[in-house]
Amino acid sequence: MRGAPAIGVTGAYGVALAAAEALRSVAPEMQQGFLSEALEELACARPTAINLRWAVNRLKGLLQGSPLITEELVAKLVSEAKRIHSEDIENNRRIAKLGATFLKNCKSVLTYCNTGDLATGGIGTAFGIIHQSYLLGQLEGVYACETRPVLQGARLTAWELMRNGIPFKLICDNMAASLMAQKAVQAVVVGADRVAANGDATNKIGTYGLAVLAHHHKIPFVVAAPCSTFDLTLVSGDEVPIEERGREEVISLLGESSFSQAVSVFNPAFDTTPAALISALVCELGVIEAPTQEKVETLLRQSLGRESLLV
Amino acid sequence: MRGAPAIGVTGAYGVALAAAEALRSVAPEMQQGFLSEALEELACARPTAINLRWAVNRLKGLLQGSPLITEELVAKLVSEAKRIHSEDIENNRRIAKLGATFLKNCKSVLTYCNTGDLATGGIGTAFGIIHQSYLLGQLEGVYACETRPVLQGARLTAWELMRNGIPFKLICDNMAASLMAQKAVQAVVVGADRVAANGDATNKIGTYGLAVLAHHHKIPFVVAAPCSTFDLTLVSGDEVPIEERGREEVISLLGESSFSQAVSVFNPAFDTTPAALISALVCELGVIEAPTQEKVETLLRQSLGRESLLV
Repeated sequence: MRGAPAIGVTGAYGVALAAAEALRSVAPEMQQGFLSEALEELACARPTAINLRWAVNRLKGLLQGSPLITEELVAKLVSEAKRIHSEDIENNRRIAKLGATFLKNCKSVLTYCNTGDLATGGIGTAFGIIHQSYLLGQLEGVYACETRPVLQGARLTAWELMRNGIPFKLICDNMAASLMAQKAVQAVVVGADRVAANGDATNKIGTYGLAVLAHHHKIPFVVAAPCSTFDLTLVSGDEVPIEERGREEVISLLGESSFSQAVSVFNPAFDTTPAALISALVCELGVIEAPTQEKVETLLRQSLGRESLLV
Repeated sequence: MRGAPAIGVTGAYGVALAAAEALRSVAPEMQQGFLSEALEELACARPTAINLRWAVNRLKGLLQGSPLITEELVAKLVSEAKRIHSEDIENNRRIAKLGATFLKNCKSVLTYCNTGDLATGGIGTAFGIIHQSYLLGQLEGVYACETRPVLQGARLTAWELMRNGIPFKLICDNMAASLMAQKAVQAVVVGADRVAANGDATNKIGTYGLAVLAHHHKIPFVVAAPCSTFDLTLVSGDEVPIEERGREEVISLLGESSFSQAVSVFNPAFDTTPAALISALVCELGVIEAPTQEKVETLLRQSLGRESLLV
């Protein structure tokens, strides 16, 4: 499971499933312990995408003051998980519309990693914007970065673009700078795994480099993410834990020779783009241009039920 | 065959071989035609690396005024090709020393593509600098970019580094920006396929992006190339023809599914880094800091026998 919003929705269903399992298979006096452990395991399954902890916490709220797990409580958890899912679909729609309006003059955009319906509950975040822009006839085509090492762009985004009939070309990540120099793209649109209070955005490794390149070429750099991706407990993106992954992902292309066995790698799965390089953050509540802590908090506080984000 | 200086050396031997074949197998009246065609084919075999045309032209000079191909002429061509080869070895040594002095305060550098003895006649250009810096005890380690799509970094540079006992980590190309943000590298050192009169350097796709990233992070960006890589007939790098290669290189990781068959790609093999982003050009004649046309021409004109480069 991957894609921060999809991880959140799945985490919510996971809590409901854990409660159902506790009710069915665990002795009543052990249920609370079983559930606490399951929730902690779920919340920690991925360190970077904050949507997971957000969704688990939201369901946890329903468990407060219920010492016993009942059929009724499980039904409440299931319907809250479904609500998170349908909210994500609706949030995607709003992000798509807001983002498409913001990018109304862009005929060609560059996107990174995977942000469509394989990564979210609905049409997607960055992908939703691309989809909407294409439906409106303003976008003519997309360049999709393959997104090494796991190739989410080549394997997932390329498939989503094809399935939606959106013309695109696949590029290796290191070709983005040339595209920008040739003025072949008028914006970069990406998703995020966590956005800090000051607007710093943590996303798939390579995103930060694209932001620097976009800045150098004076091309808008747009980050699309629902409010559930914002973590206002973090002053800046420097505090976001970056998941480091195994060497196999990087060296898998080298085969099984003794040579490749001796190669050591550096493989951070994410990086953080400072707010200063972000032209706009697009969430379901609005577009935050040139994000700052004040602008982020002002917009986010409008959102009801987000108290858990505000410590 | 790849690596601009190695392509040049090979091109020179190719001319000698073509002359030997003409002498052995072609009727005397057909020899000139055969050889002209062979030389043109050799010179055009790769459009971007200028060393090839330079080497072929240098041997062509020996053919002037020799209507007949003789054993003596073939021997002259062979010995000129050997001279080009041994000059390349010596040029590598000089570049290594000059570059290592320039980078004397760097403990860790980032390199790109392949520039060692698999790409040149000797110890290499950028790789030569890395090797020398390591021998001198000033360099502690290297980050090598895998260099998509053909993975020259992962497959060739990693092997060269291992064979020389130089500690390194392999990264995906999109991780370079994170390394720079973490101050994990103090310089970027690359080779070149062609350097224009104004100091613009054309090199493997992805080089330009690294130059922009290095500039943003205030890290020196060093291009190492022998004089034979300089093409003073070109006012700027905009005039360098960029070889576009097949889609197979980019989509080969996706397997043979009908999905991957329908994916179209953008696959330029090279890009051009403007001189303004280059901290120093290192050639066998010296180090050109903050290169300009005046500085490049002043240094290059010192080199004897380079008239062919100056139109």
